[in-house]
Amino acid sequence: MLHDKKYLKRALQLAWKGRFTTMPNPNVGCVIVHNNKIVGEGYHIRTGEAHAEIHALRVAGNLSKGATAYITLEPCSHYGRTPPCTSALINAGIKRVVVAMLDPHFYARGRGLRLLKQAGIEVRHNSLMLSEAESINRGFIKRIRTGLPWVKLKLAASLDGRTAMSSGESKWITSVQARQDVQHFRAESDVILSTANTVLADNPKLNVRWSCFSDEIKYIYANNKIRQPLRVIIDSTNRVLPTHRVIRYEGKILLVRLKKDHRNWPPTVEQLLLPSINYCGRRRVNLRELMQYLAYREINNVWVEAGATFSGILLDIGLVDELILYQAIKFLGSDARPLCLLPNIKCLNDIKSFDLIDIKNIGPDIRLRLIPKNI
Amino acid sequence: MLHDKKYLKRALQLAWKGRFTTMPNPNVGCVIVHNNKIVGEGYHIRTGEAHAEIHALRVAGNLSKGATAYITLEPCSHYGRTPPCTSALINAGIKRVVVAMLDPHFYARGRGLRLLKQAGIEVRHNSLMLSEAESINRGFIKRIRTGLPWVKLKLAASLDGRTAMSSGESKWITSVQARQDVQHFRAESDVILSTANTVLADNPKLNVRWSCFSDEIKYIYANNKIRQPLRVIIDSTNRVLPTHRVIRYEGKILLVRLKKDHRNWPPTVEQLLLPSINYCGRRRVNLRELMQYLAYREINNVWVEAGATFSGILLDIGLVDELILYQAIKFLGSDARPLCLLPNIKCLNDIKSFDLIDIKNIGPDIRLRLIPKNI
Repeated sequence: MLHDKKYLKRALQLAWKGRFTTMPNPNVGCVIVHNNKIVGEGYHIRTGEAHAEIHALRVAGNLSKGATAYITLEPCSHYGRTPPCTSALINAGIKRVVVAMLDPHFYARGRGLRLLKQAGIEVRHNSLMLSEAESINRGFIKRIRTGLPWVKLKLAASLDGRTAMSSGESKWITSVQARQDVQHFRAESDVILSTANTVLADNPKLNVRWSCFSDEIKYIYANNKIRQPLRVIIDSTNRVLPTHRVIRYEGKILLVRLKKDHRNWPPTVEQLLLPSINYCGRRRVNLRELMQYLAYREINNVWVEAGATFSGILLDIGLVDELILYQAIKFLGSDARPLCLLPNIKCLNDIKSFDLIDIKNIGPDIRLRLIPKNI
Repeated sequence: MLHDKKYLKRALQLAWKGRFTTMPNPNVGCVIVHNNKIVGEGYHIRTGEAHAEIHALRVAGNLSKGATAYITLEPCSHYGRTPPCTSALINAGIKRVVVAMLDPHFYARGRGLRLLKQAGIEVRHNSLMLSEAESINRGFIKRIRTGLPWVKLKLAASLDGRTAMSSGESKWITSVQARQDVQHFRAESDVILSTANTVLADNPKLNVRWSCFSDEIKYIYANNKIRQPLRVIIDSTNRVLPTHRVIRYEGKILLVRLKKDHRNWPPTVEQLLLPSINYCGRRRVNLRELMQYLAYREINNVWVEAGATFSGILLDIGLVDELILYQAIKFLGSDARPLCLLPNIKCLNDIKSFDLIDIKNIGPDIRLRLIPKNI
């Protein structure tokens, strides 16, 4: 009881190790404790493979008998891609189970814990470390609860909120460390979302580069185990070509369009047709429908890297769940280009406010993590 | 020897307590240590009154004999407003002196320490805690070395670098905590510098309000001991009137103009005529001459609160030593007004870069302390 928090924290650390690979499943960690000693640990690594509890029980072996299991998420009680973990816990002779949060599926919520109690296992669930447990699965939880993915928008600008000279002259204004940091966000996401504008302007690959990772992460993941997120490109006027780098580099592509084209696309490219909406006088892809479609495809986390126009639209229509802002310690001047166009802000009542959840030095730059306030 | 750093650090803490009152003198702290015990402490409080060493020696009394004195700045060796501290240290029987930095006056540098050595006192000066000692007297040191004061520019903006709606609609975008924080910077300064534009737009008092201070500072300073900095208003077209609040509130005013006016000014108002320069096609007060004049008047620290135009000019012509930027966690949008006009930034080679020396949460806002890079 005394050490419940300590062991749950350890289970959360373990869960976090799965963040590049578990999708569409949630990150889950489990610690088995016998006589105040950790006798088994595990985390969910990849969908279709064993859950965290199974890994930990295997390590604990016979020591599971009479032990306590600390799990970051309520254990599953149904036959899904794998047999239910509740049965495994009961069969292993676990005496007590502590969970940080309930299953967010409305049909499963609390059912796993009920089954454990019926089998005579003592269960603790009183939201111990609830917010920490939610924070490692924001995308999964949001998708299950709302049918929409968790959308992170990346912006990079100078301290005076600018990205390039008015002439268009530009280069990376943030540091190489900031760009490496972006690699981690890309790798944690199921989708990297961008636009034809960005593809035509910068011709980026928008992929995940293993070489950019820290040694700690390289140690956990072999080069070939890093998953390439699905790259989704909004292209309402069919300007992206098979010759662009984003098409030519490994990994799948979803081109989101208003009408198909019949160019000779490689098999990695899929075209998605969506209805349009009118936004500030222009016909644009209906982004809310896109997000619903992505969630339907079990996409938990969307990472957006795009220009000032598209970023502004996403913020304006309330589709951004988290804003990651890299600030270069520079002034580009009042004639330079703004980081984000927000033409619908006409007066002080319209301004966008955020909660600052984290601030960090990344090399010479600053990184802010911000949650838009819903006013 | 082992504890030299610890005692110097204490002396620096003491020195810092004088920051609202010592000007034009530097902040100095002194600790007297006998047999590894602090037997006397002191700091310089007010120009014309006793120096730090004298306060500390008085407390130590007879225990000064054979003791070590830790002083943040080389003791003075001349009859200035008070008798020389070197004599006092020698007469008290101090055996050893440790100083953090030498006197920055070229004619005095090292002279105090030489006199102590000649009297048989052991002297340690090898730049122990030099940067800390310099950081508590930036203004004093810069004035002595260059004939210019240390200029801090305050800016406040949203994360996208904006201050008000394009319509002019505005209110405080930063928090009450940020405004209280500004009070400390004002109180530490010898001059608060602003412009007729700001006076006409906001009609501010630009004074120091004791009620805004933290309890710690209220404890050190009685209400009537808080000094009102000289308020300097740039007014090249004589638009400030005797009825403006900055004129009517307690404290002295320097109106900086291109030609005098003969309005009926209260005795607290002085008019200073300065030559003009041409800046971006407009006739403006020569700000470099103003800064030289202020240093001549023994002004160490200038605190600037002005609008986007004046702030931009100061940055552009290289007169800013430190930028204090308050960021509200908001986006005002790309049509809103910029925090700083920098019309001379035409290409990426012209951009202003800074070193970030401190970042801090101030209420819901962020405060950055930045030093412009001289490229």
